[in-house]
Amino acid sequence: MGGEAAAQGRRILVAVDEGDESVQALRWCLGTFAAAARGDTVILLYVRPAPPTYSVLDASGYLFSEEVTAAIDRYSREVADAVVEKAQKLCTLYGKEEGEGDHEMKVEVKVAVGDARTVICHMADKLGADLLVMGSHGYGFFKRALLGSVSDYCLKNASCPVLIVKS
Amino acid sequence: MGGEAAAQGRRILVAVDEGDESVQALRWCLGTFAAAARGDTVILLYVRPAPPTYSVLDASGYLFSEEVTAAIDRYSREVADAVVEKAQKLCTLYGKEEGEGDHEMKVEVKVAVGDARTVICHMADKLGADLLVMGSHGYGFFKRALLGSVSDYCLKNASCPVLIVKS
Repeated sequence: MGGEAAAQGRRILVAVDEGDESVQALRWCLGTFAAAARGDTVILLYVRPAPPTYSVLDASGYLFSEEVTAAIDRYSREVADAVVEKAQKLCTLYGKEEGEGDHEMKVEVKVAVGDARTVICHMADKLGADLLVMGSHGYGFFKRALLGSVSDYCLKNASCPVLIVKS
Repeated sequence: MGGEAAAQGRRILVAVDEGDESVQALRWCLGTFAAAARGDTVILLYVRPAPPTYSVLDASGYLFSEEVTAAIDRYSREVADAVVEKAQKLCTLYGKEEGEGDHEMKVEVKVAVGDARTVICHMADKLGADLLVMGSHGYGFFKRALLGSVSDYCLKNASCPVLIVKS
């Protein structure tokens, strides 16, 4: 497995989100692991939550109108764009810092919708990742207490090795 | 952090034990991560349990004599030697397979005594590891159920990024 991956260049899936830990994971991956000269591909994956598909009552009993749900969805897309743009800039920056000469880091971007935990594991499998890199969190404190962390889930369920970077 | 590590060669701590998962973790590390040409150092760490320092009653009420505790300790040392020797052979083998030419992978061996969980985290810190690589287990089923897995502990407590390889 290892030898083949090394010869073809490795496919490194980096799960990015809004948090600092994911930025740090990407920075570590680019600075210490991924090598453009070796033909590696860095795949940036951002998973945004599914948009609300039906009107729901909020705490005060009001119905969310379609405009509100559309606005939430639009906001979620804007966040995705911002996160991905920042991550791509980091990839460009580190490619230059490494002094790789003519080699340029191959970067792919994927934005998926759904539960981050299951989507990341599914994509790692589907995209043939040799390694999954992520920060150690990925949910806020309360959601993490309820669901367990995204990284814990991926450690148990991803089909490839998982690298966890902490802040 | 990443840039410096890349320039100097990375220090990769691999926790090895008797299990297949640790062999697979080392193989993955050598085949996909560590690069002799880049000046990387692979540090093999085996942690063996502390020898019994006083006589204890076994289940049937007999005292372990000093000879028995000495024999247990001797056996533990033999296991350590066997694991480390196997790991070193893998390092030599993969160095050749990679066709690194004149570069030879720098390999250091450390055998420590104590609780694997705390010793691995302590050594990662003390040895200035850029990355800790390990299998996803590291205890048998019952001990893991009681203590949690070694890898879970290290993920939470190690001061460097942790890469978990599953079988």
